[in-house]
Amino acid sequence: MAGLEGSIALVSIDLPGREYDIHIGSGLLGDVQSWRGVPAAAMAVVVTNETVGPLYLEQCVRGLAPHFRRIETIALPDGEAFKSWESLQKVIDFLIARGADRKTVLVALGGGVIGDLTGFAAAVYMRGLAFVQVPTTLLAQVDSSVGGKTAINHPSGKNMVGAFHQPVRVISDLSCFETLSAREFSAGLAEVIKYGPIADAQFFEWLDGNIEALMRRDAEALAHAVKRSCEIKADVVAKDERESDLRAILNFGHTFGHAIETGVGYGQWLHGEAVACGMVMAADLSVRLGLMPEQFVTKLRSLIERAGLPVRAPNIGLDRFVELMRLDKKAEAGDIRFVLIEQLGKAVLRSAPEPLVREVIAAHTEA
Amino acid sequence: MAGLEGSIALVSIDLPGREYDIHIGSGLLGDVQSWRGVPAAAMAVVVTNETVGPLYLEQCVRGLAPHFRRIETIALPDGEAFKSWESLQKVIDFLIARGADRKTVLVALGGGVIGDLTGFAAAVYMRGLAFVQVPTTLLAQVDSSVGGKTAINHPSGKNMVGAFHQPVRVISDLSCFETLSAREFSAGLAEVIKYGPIADAQFFEWLDGNIEALMRRDAEALAHAVKRSCEIKADVVAKDERESDLRAILNFGHTFGHAIETGVGYGQWLHGEAVACGMVMAADLSVRLGLMPEQFVTKLRSLIERAGLPVRAPNIGLDRFVELMRLDKKAEAGDIRFVLIEQLGKAVLRSAPEPLVREVIAAHTEA
Repeated sequence: MAGLEGSIALVSIDLPGREYDIHIGSGLLGDVQSWRGVPAAAMAVVVTNETVGPLYLEQCVRGLAPHFRRIETIALPDGEAFKSWESLQKVIDFLIARGADRKTVLVALGGGVIGDLTGFAAAVYMRGLAFVQVPTTLLAQVDSSVGGKTAINHPSGKNMVGAFHQPVRVISDLSCFETLSAREFSAGLAEVIKYGPIADAQFFEWLDGNIEALMRRDAEALAHAVKRSCEIKADVVAKDERESDLRAILNFGHTFGHAIETGVGYGQWLHGEAVACGMVMAADLSVRLGLMPEQFVTKLRSLIERAGLPVRAPNIGLDRFVELMRLDKKAEAGDIRFVLIEQLGKAVLRSAPEPLVREVIAAHTEA
Repeated sequence: MAGLEGSIALVSIDLPGREYDIHIGSGLLGDVQSWRGVPAAAMAVVVTNETVGPLYLEQCVRGLAPHFRRIETIALPDGEAFKSWESLQKVIDFLIARGADRKTVLVALGGGVIGDLTGFAAAVYMRGLAFVQVPTTLLAQVDSSVGGKTAINHPSGKNMVGAFHQPVRVISDLSCFETLSAREFSAGLAEVIKYGPIADAQFFEWLDGNIEALMRRDAEALAHAVKRSCEIKADVVAKDERESDLRAILNFGHTFGHAIETGVGYGQWLHGEAVACGMVMAADLSVRLGLMPEQFVTKLRSLIERAGLPVRAPNIGLDRFVELMRLDKKAEAGDIRFVLIEQLGKAVLRSAPEPLVREVIAAHTEA
């Protein structure tokens, strides 16, 4: 990690009545400057997990210290299983026990699970507290830090209970990637790569030319990738805050991907890995529908491979694969709709003939 | 109940991006017209309680029937104790079990507890469902049907967990008062009376001249009282949706009132009863601070008495009374702020010297 120590890229999110900045750079966490302008309050409560806490909590508290009279911390166990009612109640109970009031600021220090859970706690405690998101994974920095989606899981489904609640600040510290495993890092890259085909041909070309720099975690390349990803997502979200068709383009690769994730059993494939493979399939479906030239699949697949991501789905059976896609919550009245690319940088939402879908699945599945 | 069968008063609530109408009249519940224009969906889920359900569910379902393919119902036990995490989870589990999707419409059929709880479930299920509020008590019709506040209680405090979530329609059926006890009805009147001094001198005069008609539950008088109360609250809320100083004027009588409620133990006095007595005290404090003439207290007290409401606080001890006011969540940093009247129809938020406050409490407390 080099070249960007101290320097900052800024993305301004501008939704009506809820503007906030995303600070992107290395070493931001412990820097008091990162926290300047966060609403003044007597108390900040940092919610983190037992993996991230020991690594970054001390820095985080150092950055927060000059801005708050009191800093309280709660660490939940690590993992998707703890994005639950029980964890939410634990955080709420903690806030009450520590006397949190309407001005208390919540800080989410961790990946997507901590961000979603803490954001939801902030959304509902006393009907809404300010919260700062400190995403420590690449995936969280380029995905959940923009859009205001917060949630917990229900035994029957992911993100079944939640709210739209925007943070007052996002601090994306690239230094946190130092402790991110290669596999987690690549999974985050899948979501970065996604933004090219759906919204920005130039970014897609840039990724193609800079994937090796990203893979060696070059700070400058990372700063650009995170910044551009956030900008694109912010642009899509601003046009369609409440998720109808436009926002759905962010799910490029997700319809196939979800089937893979569910088919192999949650936790076997990382979300980003399934999305990566799903993007290859969605790209191929775009080609077979005559929307894109053949070379698009080749180029996207190569990029995904160089990012250390899988391009072939596990063999879970063709019928089962299709059935799982149907069960996906994005499917309406049995008609599976796909995010397809109709032009590099332009996505479209449409259904496709099932035989063609089956061909695509078969073509990209391990024997 | 007579004179208004079928006729409707309409109040339009106009918050940016979230407009909705309040229909006020007799016999609205079973009238399919009342439900026209509610967002189309395959399924409506009615949440009610075990007291209200047997009385009004059938009518409600009759009104809903032409608009939805499926109508599901869940009845919770009656009472504030059920405005809880457990009830929320029960409703969420029910929604999941019945396959509710993002388009499902929730209907809250009941008083404030059902309205707050159902509204909160609607706010968080899949990050937000449309919901229709059908307030069956006078209090709920003039108070919780406007403002978008939803919540559940926590063992440590009321409304600790909640959200701002506006209904898509409010159906205020005056016929529901037929089954409302005299005590509950009077408690609702306390909140109606409140709107006069804080916002509308003319309405205060109207109430003074029509309190007997209201007490015999004259439909025309009721329709006007409910309509004007909603209009005033809507006006205050529109100017200050997120509750800062302006919205606080809606708490006229509440600082003294909360101390009474807590002092005698929750459930002993109804909220409206405590607010009624609290209004007399706040009026007297306004007089003692030289803001209003002596006659104001006399007139307000008389109106409150004619509404069947208490004007003398129970003797819980002067020190304890003051201490309880300090603990009220509206108190900031120990300084108790009161909603006072500085002119009939105009409220102001300010603190007062403690000796004066003690004089007021003593003057309106039972020996």
